[in-house]
Amino acid sequence: MNYKMMCRFLALICLAETVFFLPALGISIYDGSRGAILGFAISATVSLALYIVFKLIARRTRGVLYAKEGFVCVASSWILMSAIGALPFVISGEIPNYVDALFETVSGFTTTGSSIFTDVEVLPRGLIYWRSFTHWVGGLGILVFLLMMVPGGKNEGFTMHLFRAESPGPEVGKLVPKMRQTATVLYMTYIVLTVLNFTFLILGDMNTFEALCTAFGTAGTGGFGIKNDSMASYSPYIQNVTTVFLILFGVNFSCYYLLILRQFKSVFCDEELRLYLGIVTAAIAMIAINVFATGFYGTFGESLRHAAFQVASIISTAGFSTTDFDLWPMFSKSILAILMITGACAGSTCGGMKCARVLLLFKNLRRNIHNLLHPQQVQVVRVNGRAVDEKVIANTNGYLAAYVIILFVSFVAISLFDNNSIGTNFSAVLTCFNNVGPGFEAVGPMANFAHLSIPSKLILTFDMLAGRLEIFPLLLLFSGSVWKKA
Amino acid sequence: MNYKMMCRFLALICLAETVFFLPALGISIYDGSRGAILGFAISATVSLALYIVFKLIARRTRGVLYAKEGFVCVASSWILMSAIGALPFVISGEIPNYVDALFETVSGFTTTGSSIFTDVEVLPRGLIYWRSFTHWVGGLGILVFLLMMVPGGKNEGFTMHLFRAESPGPEVGKLVPKMRQTATVLYMTYIVLTVLNFTFLILGDMNTFEALCTAFGTAGTGGFGIKNDSMASYSPYIQNVTTVFLILFGVNFSCYYLLILRQFKSVFCDEELRLYLGIVTAAIAMIAINVFATGFYGTFGESLRHAAFQVASIISTAGFSTTDFDLWPMFSKSILAILMITGACAGSTCGGMKCARVLLLFKNLRRNIHNLLHPQQVQVVRVNGRAVDEKVIANTNGYLAAYVIILFVSFVAISLFDNNSIGTNFSAVLTCFNNVGPGFEAVGPMANFAHLSIPSKLILTFDMLAGRLEIFPLLLLFSGSVWKKA
Repeated sequence: MNYKMMCRFLALICLAETVFFLPALGISIYDGSRGAILGFAISATVSLALYIVFKLIARRTRGVLYAKEGFVCVASSWILMSAIGALPFVISGEIPNYVDALFETVSGFTTTGSSIFTDVEVLPRGLIYWRSFTHWVGGLGILVFLLMMVPGGKNEGFTMHLFRAESPGPEVGKLVPKMRQTATVLYMTYIVLTVLNFTFLILGDMNTFEALCTAFGTAGTGGFGIKNDSMASYSPYIQNVTTVFLILFGVNFSCYYLLILRQFKSVFCDEELRLYLGIVTAAIAMIAINVFATGFYGTFGESLRHAAFQVASIISTAGFSTTDFDLWPMFSKSILAILMITGACAGSTCGGMKCARVLLLFKNLRRNIHNLLHPQQVQVVRVNGRAVDEKVIANTNGYLAAYVIILFVSFVAISLFDNNSIGTNFSAVLTCFNNVGPGFEAVGPMANFAHLSIPSKLILTFDMLAGRLEIFPLLLLFSGSVWKKA
Repeated sequence: MNYKMMCRFLALICLAETVFFLPALGISIYDGSRGAILGFAISATVSLALYIVFKLIARRTRGVLYAKEGFVCVASSWILMSAIGALPFVISGEIPNYVDALFETVSGFTTTGSSIFTDVEVLPRGLIYWRSFTHWVGGLGILVFLLMMVPGGKNEGFTMHLFRAESPGPEVGKLVPKMRQTATVLYMTYIVLTVLNFTFLILGDMNTFEALCTAFGTAGTGGFGIKNDSMASYSPYIQNVTTVFLILFGVNFSCYYLLILRQFKSVFCDEELRLYLGIVTAAIAMIAINVFATGFYGTFGESLRHAAFQVASIISTAGFSTTDFDLWPMFSKSILAILMITGACAGSTCGGMKCARVLLLFKNLRRNIHNLLHPQQVQVVRVNGRAVDEKVIANTNGYLAAYVIILFVSFVAISLFDNNSIGTNFSAVLTCFNNVGPGFEAVGPMANFAHLSIPSKLILTFDMLAGRLEIFPLLLLFSGSVWKKA
């Protein structure tokens, strides 16, 4: 491990976070909320001090970055970013316990949206802004963005390792030959879509502050609500706008790039996109019929609106809600549980397994069955007409194994500390690990995570990070060989 | 597909089942229970008639059997065997609905032990015997056994395909060069262990009938109780004997063969056996401490007895119970849920994923992590010092994918028909698919499956068969190419 190099990234994170604290500090000063002012001011100072410390350690760094370092730098950056990001909550006095604050902040950066607040509406606006802004920062990843901004950060191999470790999906590739341009395309798309979302919300008579926070939460597919009932009290227009944008933010961002290049056919034929939209359509139809048939809403239109919103919100792993879907019939709830696992597309801001992996798992399963019937034939797995590298398939299989293991081990572990029902404990893990937000029963959309024990919150915090960084960067932190000095 | 060949196996199954019905008929005549006499007499006649029909179709069969045919023959044999085996329940009038009877019979043959009876103690003894006997038949598989018994059935390649399709585990191999001898060793071990178990039960003052049925249920790791409280009312001695034998029946039978050959070191160093015994010990210790600490039982000894029994019963996927473990704290319940999934060793009579697969998944995961750190190195997965064929690893990965998909699709499907809690519906699928028996909440150890809807019972019936035959033989039935005429 190249520790100096690691410190360089940590310094970068601290500097960025200092800057990120400033708007929140500004809002707090404007509102005159003393606790929040204190919180952000001290946090920004701490962050700046840490920046200087790391910068001093990291000066005159040289050497090559290997894949290993990429993973570890990303994982430790995310942990540090969350550790500092939690400070304003504690210092302002809004969250007395640091673990709770860490849970809330990790939930923000990982775009999970699970909250420990029983009443968010009484929070100072500076903190509400900060919660939503963490979603936006975490959505597309931060490290590659930062590296693009600083001089000397354009080493290709270097950035590629970080990009691979931070971006979701089984196969992370560049859109354009240069990493810098790829990042520019991605972040520009992100910003443009966010601004569009914000505009549409404003057009629906939402006030600027709420529209900004909602747009951040939607873009990052995070899901922290700014109201206690999440989005239930907003107008159908606002809800429908959010539905559409949640679905859009679940699409692989490279599809938008292809659209700009007018390669409509590639987009139209993209197998992952088709699977994603197919799942969304099927899930909306099934749930709308199910909840309408069981008499939950007066009209089919209303059923459809809630079904569409909830499907978009869960598959994009945002986790907003317009209704208490925990009261829905089990069929609808079980479909939502599946959507939590699949998630939306790779290369989007969403969590979960990603449709690209689901596609690969199904195709590989079909190959397995084919091989049983025809043991002599060698078959290649193809996606979008191209043969998929066997390494990618092996990694996807490994991912599934790690996924299942972490899911069930976490379930056992939190059950040791919290004697809730199976539905509560299992869905708590499922929803945190897949960065969704609300689960079912005692962690349902109208409930929150406040009642869980401190050890459970720490386990779920780990799960949120593991889910966002796609397991391996975080697992590598536990490998002794990683920490050997280079 | 060679249909004539398939009919040959179906004929064999019908003949065997006719013979199997006879002891049950004998018991019914001895007891003078009219319904049961009628049930078994008619069923035996139907079975015999079907035998003649299939035999006529299959006469003068020739041709080679491929792997494909092996899978399909095994799957269709098991379905037919269950379809006929369900008849006595219906004809005797004890189960009015055929789907319920089919559920009960599949639960028997697949050694699941989930029951639709709310009161088993009122059943005629002939039917109680039949339920338990189906466990014993299903435990080690039937087709290879039958093939050994008939003239002309000793074709090696032939039998090997069936053996692979019917025996559990990722890598099914012969113990000795000849298939016939391998089968003899396995079935002799099975019979000897069953007789031993029976003897120990008799020594504990159990009556002969109950000892026989309990031994069948234990040997097949099935778990149909002959009392309404499963094994709660039996003496601690009987419970402990059952604990020990359940653990023994969970061991890969080839270990016993190696013991006879005095290859103690191979057995002692067997990685799967170590993992299995390690899981058993750890689970017993954790649960015993957990239930004792939460005050469920007066003494630690009693806690230990119930913990040991329940761990043995669940990991071996038998599903007997000595206590209502659904009342236990969530930590203990979540451990039991994990044991349902892992199951015991490959090559035993147990269900679940099998420890051998869990071992392979973990080793493969470790390799994946190693490959991330050292992308240039090629690493082989080794078990017991031998390199594992990459095909076996690919199949294990495919197995996990298919496992997860079936698990969640079944969960959604039964949720459409039964609006129970997440814990009930999920554990119903988990317990049936892994051939365990009781689940949690409304399908817990003191409850049963009677209240589920007919479609849910059919789905769970499929899951039980899929679990017992390890998914692929059953999945292949849905592949069009399999049914093309050869």
